[in-house]
Amino acid sequence: MMVVGIDPGTATTGYGIVEDKGYGLEAITYGVVTTAPSLPLEQRLAQLFDALSTLIQRYKPDSAAVEQLFFQRNVRTAIAVGQARGVALLALAKAGLSVGEYSPLEVKQAVTGYGGADKNQVQHMVQLLLNLPEVPHPDDAADALAVAICHLHHLRTAQQWTT
Amino acid sequence: MMVVGIDPGTATTGYGIVEDKGYGLEAITYGVVTTAPSLPLEQRLAQLFDALSTLIQRYKPDSAAVEQLFFQRNVRTAIAVGQARGVALLALAKAGLSVGEYSPLEVKQAVTGYGGADKNQVQHMVQLLLNLPEVPHPDDAADALAVAICHLHHLRTAQQWTT
Repeated sequence: MMVVGIDPGTATTGYGIVEDKGYGLEAITYGVVTTAPSLPLEQRLAQLFDALSTLIQRYKPDSAAVEQLFFQRNVRTAIAVGQARGVALLALAKAGLSVGEYSPLEVKQAVTGYGGADKNQVQHMVQLLLNLPEVPHPDDAADALAVAICHLHHLRTAQQWTT
Repeated sequence: MMVVGIDPGTATTGYGIVEDKGYGLEAITYGVVTTAPSLPLEQRLAQLFDALSTLIQRYKPDSAAVEQLFFQRNVRTAIAVGQARGVALLALAKAGLSVGEYSPLEVKQAVTGYGGADKNQVQHMVQLLLNLPEVPHPDDAADALAVAICHLHHLRTAQQWTT
């Protein structure tokens, strides 16, 4: 089971693809899509869509996950992140992927076992769970890996209940 | 010159296509795209994208316009509208259209000549300017026609300055 996690933003969108190997988790790839601030918004969104579509086509994940957005600092930021999030969700739908949505609390809980964990703890656990040589950079990529791990955890638990 | 105006939302997205005939404006088509609340968000966004892409392919407008979003009531609404707006902008970019963005004030000013105009005045003037038998319904379609008119007005003024 391979999952792509996405942490959307207009300037920078993090992605992380994680595979559940049965004996453990493996980070297949991770990184960020950046778009040029000099371009019109609609073209930046098109760049983001194309980059995510290419990524999905290349690695062919089985499912996808995105964090729910509740805690944006202000309305203008919320609209900007919402626009990028809409385009990311579209790229996933167009690839035929179902999308799990998780609150920040659920992600922390799944990755660290503790809903009150801070950013450093989450990143540390992402590194450990994926057996990476260092904490994944940049932060948006680490966040995307975290939501992918959360989704795999959720899918595995759901499977235990149904089998 | 033909312009498509879009008023985005997840449940209902208004659209209106207006042509500047030289002697006046004509509403080529207008209406709303609605998506099923029972579907997952990513599939609703895909429905919206497909419907707008089909519309653009059918009428082949020369340019596009969308209202700027500043005055959302709350952050959750802002994210939801932002997601639909991102998908709408992507459909326009994928069709090779440039997108004009206008504030609600600019739209009111262009359509009624008065930035303090209320919703009824704007709708009344949209009906008059497009020579329609009645006020266009629903509101989202009327709003989309208004931003299209604003864009045509803007393009015409810009042309006068450059020729």
